[in-house]
Amino acid sequence: MVTRGDARREQILYAAMVVFADHGYHRASLAGIAEHVGISQAGLLHHFPTKPRLLTAVLEARDRLDREWLAELDPDGRTGPRLLVNLLRLVDRNRRLGGLVQIYTALAGESVTDDHPARAWFTDRYGRVTASVEAGLLAGADALRPDVDCALLAREVVAVMDGLQLQWLLRPDEVDMVAAFRDYATRLIRSTALDPEPLVALLASAVPVPLPAHAG
Amino acid sequence: MVTRGDARREQILYAAMVVFADHGYHRASLAGIAEHVGISQAGLLHHFPTKPRLLTAVLEARDRLDREWLAELDPDGRTGPRLLVNLLRLVDRNRRLGGLVQIYTALAGESVTDDHPARAWFTDRYGRVTASVEAGLLAGADALRPDVDCALLAREVVAVMDGLQLQWLLRPDEVDMVAAFRDYATRLIRSTALDPEPLVALLASAVPVPLPAHAG
Repeated sequence: MVTRGDARREQILYAAMVVFADHGYHRASLAGIAEHVGISQAGLLHHFPTKPRLLTAVLEARDRLDREWLAELDPDGRTGPRLLVNLLRLVDRNRRLGGLVQIYTALAGESVTDDHPARAWFTDRYGRVTASVEAGLLAGADALRPDVDCALLAREVVAVMDGLQLQWLLRPDEVDMVAAFRDYATRLIRSTALDPEPLVALLASAVPVPLPAHAG
Repeated sequence: MVTRGDARREQILYAAMVVFADHGYHRASLAGIAEHVGISQAGLLHHFPTKPRLLTAVLEARDRLDREWLAELDPDGRTGPRLLVNLLRLVDRNRRLGGLVQIYTALAGESVTDDHPARAWFTDRYGRVTASVEAGLLAGADALRPDVDCALLAREVVAVMDGLQLQWLLRPDEVDMVAAFRDYATRLIRSTALDPEPLVALLASAVPVPLPAHAG
């Protein structure tokens, strides 16, 4: 059952997503987000008592929206080597939602220090994300060469995306993370897929795709 | 000419490196570092007026020591696909110096936010590091397939290292970054080098190598 409290919570989350995407980590204030939803700052703090709680809830909602968006674009892109095509779409989407990528990268970096309030969330999140990529690769393993280690490959793919985001955020005009990820995915598909060329052709034409609205 | 001030500065840097490597980002204090060198905290602040200044100086010294260490281990590992073998050695070295990797990852993440005091340093550092990997690959390009894009590949290799470090710092017992990087480098060498198998054999035996002392 969706209660009125749940609906308000969702409203705050989407408003926060929009404000963070536009303004980034430091310039987005809790007051600005509350104003966007039309509630008081105390009302916001009732749902999200601290800024890290709100930030991780926003990142969790982003992950969910990303999954839904990708599943709708290409249901076949959830398994096997075709997964790389969907991840390229995600890299291109991230390029256009830089404020959220900035929050993600900054908070993930901070989270590795001891006792950081977002450490448990990021630890869980990486467990979930790498397990999900591994499961997707395994579910389409009949299209992969038999010597592919899907567990290690899942970690690698996630690492490439994170590392390119960091370089891109620091030098957005010089670092083309879509080109770098496409180059990586093309080589990876050629060295792991049994029938690579149709997927390589798909990589060449898969982006850009139109962005959906993040807020309802 | 090396002045007494320079020598003291170096002494502080190496002490900071040891203290940060042992204690990590938050638990290492300026007071503890000053004590380690046998100077007052005011004396330390004379050389490094802020914590970000000291941290980036430590990371710069780490980069220099890493380069010297790698050049000594395998002078041929600075060019072409053999560079990947040296980078695997670096991943293994990082695994054993986790406190410095923690500082690096946390500060790099924070640096992507607007106006962060370490942003300019990281922006320059990534420019230098990716240019140096690209130049190394190009200098040995006769051992690479002609369709390799060394500029994009340099970004990718650096991204993989950064991204794996993040996952490893969050789950050190579960994430084997040496295994993941070796798997990546093996596939990469097989898909880019003209004569891959001798290098793949080298990857299999290149680590662990004995650690040098960081402090003099």
